[in-house]
Amino acid sequence: MTSPLHTLLQPRSIALIGATETARPDFIFGLRSLGFTGEIHVVNPRYPEVHGIKSYASLLDLPAAVDYAILAVPARAVPGVIEDCARKGVKIAHLYTGRFSETGRPQDAELEREVLKVAKRGGVRLIGPNCMGLYYPRLGIGWTDDFPTDAGPVGMASQSSYAPHDLIVMAKPRGIRFSKVIGYGNALDLNECDFLEYLTEDPETKVIMMYIEGVKDGKRFLSYLREATKRKPVILTKGGKGEAGGRAAASHTGSLAGSIQAWQTAVAQAGAIPADSLEELMDYALTFSMLGPISGPRVGIAGSGGGPSVLAADQCEAAGLEVVPLPDEIRQELKARQNPAWDWVGNPVDMTIGIGVLGPGEMLRLMAAHPSFDILIAIVGEPHYAKRQANLSAEAMLTRFGLGALKEKPLLAVVPDKSLNLASLEEPTARLMCDIRTKLLAAGVPVYPTMGRAARSARALLDHYRSVAPEKAVPN
Amino acid sequence: MTSPLHTLLQPRSIALIGATETARPDFIFGLRSLGFTGEIHVVNPRYPEVHGIKSYASLLDLPAAVDYAILAVPARAVPGVIEDCARKGVKIAHLYTGRFSETGRPQDAELEREVLKVAKRGGVRLIGPNCMGLYYPRLGIGWTDDFPTDAGPVGMASQSSYAPHDLIVMAKPRGIRFSKVIGYGNALDLNECDFLEYLTEDPETKVIMMYIEGVKDGKRFLSYLREATKRKPVILTKGGKGEAGGRAAASHTGSLAGSIQAWQTAVAQAGAIPADSLEELMDYALTFSMLGPISGPRVGIAGSGGGPSVLAADQCEAAGLEVVPLPDEIRQELKARQNPAWDWVGNPVDMTIGIGVLGPGEMLRLMAAHPSFDILIAIVGEPHYAKRQANLSAEAMLTRFGLGALKEKPLLAVVPDKSLNLASLEEPTARLMCDIRTKLLAAGVPVYPTMGRAARSARALLDHYRSVAPEKAVPN
Repeated sequence: MTSPLHTLLQPRSIALIGATETARPDFIFGLRSLGFTGEIHVVNPRYPEVHGIKSYASLLDLPAAVDYAILAVPARAVPGVIEDCARKGVKIAHLYTGRFSETGRPQDAELEREVLKVAKRGGVRLIGPNCMGLYYPRLGIGWTDDFPTDAGPVGMASQSSYAPHDLIVMAKPRGIRFSKVIGYGNALDLNECDFLEYLTEDPETKVIMMYIEGVKDGKRFLSYLREATKRKPVILTKGGKGEAGGRAAASHTGSLAGSIQAWQTAVAQAGAIPADSLEELMDYALTFSMLGPISGPRVGIAGSGGGPSVLAADQCEAAGLEVVPLPDEIRQELKARQNPAWDWVGNPVDMTIGIGVLGPGEMLRLMAAHPSFDILIAIVGEPHYAKRQANLSAEAMLTRFGLGALKEKPLLAVVPDKSLNLASLEEPTARLMCDIRTKLLAAGVPVYPTMGRAARSARALLDHYRSVAPEKAVPN
Repeated sequence: MTSPLHTLLQPRSIALIGATETARPDFIFGLRSLGFTGEIHVVNPRYPEVHGIKSYASLLDLPAAVDYAILAVPARAVPGVIEDCARKGVKIAHLYTGRFSETGRPQDAELEREVLKVAKRGGVRLIGPNCMGLYYPRLGIGWTDDFPTDAGPVGMASQSSYAPHDLIVMAKPRGIRFSKVIGYGNALDLNECDFLEYLTEDPETKVIMMYIEGVKDGKRFLSYLREATKRKPVILTKGGKGEAGGRAAASHTGSLAGSIQAWQTAVAQAGAIPADSLEELMDYALTFSMLGPISGPRVGIAGSGGGPSVLAADQCEAAGLEVVPLPDEIRQELKARQNPAWDWVGNPVDMTIGIGVLGPGEMLRLMAAHPSFDILIAIVGEPHYAKRQANLSAEAMLTRFGLGALKEKPLLAVVPDKSLNLASLEEPTARLMCDIRTKLLAAGVPVYPTMGRAARSARALLDHYRSVAPEKAVPN
């Protein structure tokens, strides 16, 4: 392992410089909420203590070693504090402080260059400026109590911090958990290459996600990316694709967005999985965390009624999956079982045409056992179906779908969500669907709110494992 | 008004033929739940009464007039019952009964032709077979108590019945309400043209939605469609776009899907708005119900932080909107107010860069008053923001956004939804967002769960009102 971050991002003591009791984010509250067990120190000449922690006037007054400094001081004070860090022997500083090159003002860019000079001279590595820094649930590091305290296989490096913030919070109910997330802002010193190398080597990270607005050295980044994608799936969102997005990226992290066509071709050739929105990032993180390689694009679909089944087939085909006809062997098996719809039922299995006596689980099991299918999608709990099943428990409904037992083929589930207002939150079917989602995730089945999103996720999985050398593919 | 359906679909008495207490759907339960105030009659020789209603052995024994018959008898019994309808003077029958041409079996298709012959001879119009028929909330007609009892401006004709069933249920918490919905299945007699003509003329319908798997006569349908789109927005989803979808459509409603390229060109030229999924249908129904014409593609965006703002700009541009730079007049206005970020802030307005003292509402008001903007999108309650506002009430938060007061420009709101499991349902911010969604909808602001869906909806609105002759456009 070559990245210095393996050591630098394992702090046992953190100093918060410029912390107050009213500032937001409240890093002390974040660390305590997530259960950080190391030492928390405070440096702020204006207060004798902050949240019950003695506050020192200067880092140099602090009678303890510091592994990691978080700076929440005004921009003009940053060079001095970094000099203090160097003298104190602090090896890494996270600059929460912003108002540097991203403002577009020459004097702010000049100050940023000065910060880098001081840091390099003193041997202090920098995360930021203009970012939220590290979320590392296993060590209890993070900036808000909104984040899960339990860890998972997804590692993320993001130039934006609020994008992963929202993503982590939104991903929580979808069962997505993180190894570590770094919001790195303007990337003045440590940049996308350093974080990508670190996550590639990190044994706690099985799937890498990145949100990037601009890279400092495109060639270098692509070479790191090629190495990473040989070892793990890398899902990549580019912010600032268009003209307005590029302008916004410049005023957000001082990034120059560059040509998006060239970028997209290059990252695809390097084996990264592109995602266009936070929803897609989240879908792919879930998919790649839970499912390994799939053998091909041929999908079997069951669980819905007529029209929704037709649309499911259309959406799977639009995503590049093959909705193969129901094989004759399955038809003959149904005939042997005297199923009245043996000559009528197809793929997708329309559950309303009389096959229903079998249950969707039985049809999925038949498809799982047949070589014509590479992947299965179960549609669970659409309103017209959920209503008729409302007297069932989640367990009974999942037994009917037989979803826990399907191990032969990769399986995805579509469970729609309609909890958009207070009245709908209280409906029994809404709560039943919530329960079913939780149980499916616990059984290792990824759950999507729409068929289109499930189909695109399956296709991303297929594309990824086709593009990497099979012998080097790392199924999770 | 030329459609006979204006009279036929206003029944004061409904006869349920073949009703039992255990059948699903339970039309009697549906009618009672939705508050049907007309007479409900039952015909079923096997029972003396059903749900407390006296049951007659034959329609001809019933000592009352019948405006509308619902047939839930076996397929082979349908011709006889239609003959009874003719003798009884029933003018319209809804055939819930299926197992006709959709099975693909020659004898079932033959029976279907026989049904049509008998109906034509007897002067009985048919809805179906193989469908759920009519949902008409003002009269209290429908097949489930899951549907809203209040009416709204959206009329829908759908060859599938479960697609609109799910759509109506899922649309409820999004504030979408319906004038009438007809699930018409195999379209043996009354077909897509009849229902489109009816909804075009219907004064209770302001926006038309259609889900179609196949049409009987393409030229005739396109001519009805051209007339309809001159008067109202028509949002159209085609089921069976691909090979597998086409197969599924054939076994669902016996439809022949035809060439999708030719179809898409033709319906676009006829002025219809295409929607590829139930989510998109729902988004567009909401958009066209709540917003009238917009003057152009130039969008102003406010409310989010850095990275999400960059992605918002990208998604708006991908949808074909123009994210114009912040005009100099607004910049000078901010400078005059001594705002420290006057030279830095852009469009989208990144709320985390110090403009925050103004609040997103103030920025949206400045953009609403400036001629550079045709349309506004507010991002409300993303997790990183909602958390900081969790001590505010929904009212206070909306006041901060000033959203109720914005009348000068069409406004859309993005309020993310994360209620995917039971734990997340209970979170205070989830409940706050639910409350905010309800209040925004009550103020006439359509709400979308993602920026991409809001942006595509705005673009659909723009395309539609550009394609229809402005003098004939009917804003709602």
